[in-house]
Amino acid sequence: MSFEESLRRITNNIEDSLGVAMVGMDGMVVEEHKKDPLLDLQSLGAEYCAVIKDIERVSSSLGLGSGREISVITDKAIVILKKINEEYFLLLALGSEGNFGKGRFLLKREIAFLEKEL
Amino acid sequence: MSFEESLRRITNNIEDSLGVAMVGMDGMVVEEHKKDPLLDLQSLGAEYCAVIKDIERVSSSLGLGSGREISVITDKAIVILKKINEEYFLLLALGSEGNFGKGRFLLKREIAFLEKEL
Repeated sequence: MSFEESLRRITNNIEDSLGVAMVGMDGMVVEEHKKDPLLDLQSLGAEYCAVIKDIERVSSSLGLGSGREISVITDKAIVILKKINEEYFLLLALGSEGNFGKGRFLLKREIAFLEKEL
Repeated sequence: MSFEESLRRITNNIEDSLGVAMVGMDGMVVEEHKKDPLLDLQSLGAEYCAVIKDIERVSSSLGLGSGREISVITDKAIVILKKINEEYFLLLALGSEGNFGKGRFLLKREIAFLEKEL
């Protein structure tokens, strides 16, 4: 199964999905699948990669261990970041009324596949 | 109702709660209620306040609007940050196997009260 198929299985199974990307810890998008053509997943990936690193530093300094998942809910979107391994993470963007729980579930399910492929 | 009572209503209604704090956007804890005596809510508040500001900047630059809620899941804990208004937020720390959905629900319910008190 290609990475793109895996990403499609996420966005096609949830309403109000804007797009999903597999992003490297260098902030570069490896693969993406958009529902909203205006969504700039490259910028989202780069900016949130910096956020992940910042939170990793904070969590480690507070003795909370390594980060696994970060969610950000804003006025206009829900962004869920979930680590595949130490080098890659998935970024899922939903509309602000999207189903947060289902988004988390689909990421978890697909990461079980992606872990083996990487 | 005092702020402390409000915080107790969160921690006493969820298993695996480590503690909850009301934190100002200057990183200072206004009120806290701990279940785990070793939990350093002062440090958590200060560090995550910086994270919130960083994410606010990123969200704004990406056109996603203002942040409402941030969740961080690490190997050892679940930390949920939810804004009360532009000056204060609640920080809830749960064990890593804690009920994330219930934590979010309790924060939302209590913020409806706190908004009026502040």
